[in-house]
Amino acid sequence: MQPSWLVNGRQEQVDPRDRGLAYGDGLFETMACHAGGIRWIEHHLDRVLYGCRRLAIPVFDRNLLRSEILSVCPIAGSAVIKLIVTRGIGERGYRAPEPASPTRIVSTAPWPEIPAEHYTVGVSLKTCTLRLGENPQLAGLKHLCRLEQVLAQMELAGSDAGEGLLRGSSGLVVGGITSNLFAVRDGRLLTPRVNRCGVAGVMRRVVLKHAADTGLDSSEADLDVTALVESEELFITNAVFGIKPVRALDTHEFGVGPTTCRLMRLLGYGPVT
Amino acid sequence: MQPSWLVNGRQEQVDPRDRGLAYGDGLFETMACHAGGIRWIEHHLDRVLYGCRRLAIPVFDRNLLRSEILSVCPIAGSAVIKLIVTRGIGERGYRAPEPASPTRIVSTAPWPEIPAEHYTVGVSLKTCTLRLGENPQLAGLKHLCRLEQVLAQMELAGSDAGEGLLRGSSGLVVGGITSNLFAVRDGRLLTPRVNRCGVAGVMRRVVLKHAADTGLDSSEADLDVTALVESEELFITNAVFGIKPVRALDTHEFGVGPTTCRLMRLLGYGPVT
Repeated sequence: MQPSWLVNGRQEQVDPRDRGLAYGDGLFETMACHAGGIRWIEHHLDRVLYGCRRLAIPVFDRNLLRSEILSVCPIAGSAVIKLIVTRGIGERGYRAPEPASPTRIVSTAPWPEIPAEHYTVGVSLKTCTLRLGENPQLAGLKHLCRLEQVLAQMELAGSDAGEGLLRGSSGLVVGGITSNLFAVRDGRLLTPRVNRCGVAGVMRRVVLKHAADTGLDSSEADLDVTALVESEELFITNAVFGIKPVRALDTHEFGVGPTTCRLMRLLGYGPVT
Repeated sequence: MQPSWLVNGRQEQVDPRDRGLAYGDGLFETMACHAGGIRWIEHHLDRVLYGCRRLAIPVFDRNLLRSEILSVCPIAGSAVIKLIVTRGIGERGYRAPEPASPTRIVSTAPWPEIPAEHYTVGVSLKTCTLRLGENPQLAGLKHLCRLEQVLAQMELAGSDAGEGLLRGSSGLVVGGITSNLFAVRDGRLLTPRVNRCGVAGVMRRVVLKHAADTGLDSSEADLDVTALVESEELFITNAVFGIKPVRALDTHEFGVGPTTCRLMRLLGYGPVT
């Protein structure tokens, strides 16, 4: 499957003066498309529009974004759909253009093959050496400045880890390189705060909401690696794979626990049968 | 003057899958062009090639970069030339393509009008609220992840400050939003370290080298705002404007001191006459 895309609704390329390229001045969403629809699409739209407000990027029309996203969804099968929004073309310099004319890019990519054992046995995490810089003004946003994640991903080369565990410069755990992380301790669901760095993932929101709806005690917390190792269960989340149990954190092993299994089953994630 | 650009040597646009746009996975240089030549071009080439090595981006041929940069320089007058290099087009995901086929973009922009009093009286600095995240693996590099600088620049809206002063999350001073900073204390030249965050500017290198060559005592230092206020002189540097004295830091005022004047004169920066 060849990637295809739309830039501001047209099949064209990107202006080299776009501030998304020049300064990482924008946001993105990575979404799961199945049979022509996007799972959790309203959550994705919520987040990107919230991010625009946080960055003072003029907010797009929600219906326009939704219809453009859906217009590139294949009707059959599954695909990954990506939305990028940027502050648009600007003159040289950090000063934001006034008024800005933001850019939107929607594109499709093949659905990744997810091995069944990622759901039945789990994935292993490796703690990365790189520590994320902490800036509350960017924390939680899925902005385009992702060089830290690119470098962290390089640390996994040659290892059999399925995901890297990231800490912030203060030493607290943030989550996976491409995922959020949950721990189950004493039957409670805990997930790292994303108020210093990290991304407030759509699946993270779904899991927290689902926990609240079903009476499962859950909260955001300051967690270090020791707290993770002492947990009964760990799992990671993102909008493409949903929920995956963690079978190992470095040398420490975990089983696939009942809370993880219950959430996977109730939210409809698991091996394709 | 219309901006013009070359993407990998051709007058075309940028592929939306370019990792510079997707992840800020690249570097840039902003250079001063006068009468067809680039001032400090070998320093700029040094820095971008060093940055490629730090980020494991395949290193470009230095002669190719130099000739492409010079090919867009107007023969008469002055212009700002920008070079962007990225890891190139990639599939979805942070994992770097192997082998990568990096992208290079050279572009021209109009030379800014710099008021004569910026050199004769100086500019005022305003301390920004935003504090830069600190990550030693990215520190010093002029990488494409500049959303912090975009947000900091917004803090200057409505103020008459010519530049924003940035601190890192640890509270130490880093420099200006678009410049490096020097202080003169007891006749010694001091400049913030850029080992936690910040950019190791080309003009910063030029000034440090010039100080060493002329017997002016200079060093990198951990500086807080109090240390700046207690300084005899402050000045800021970048490769476009060169050196500008600082006339005020928030409410604290400075004169244009002898060390600043000497460096401006010896390095050939000042009002256009």
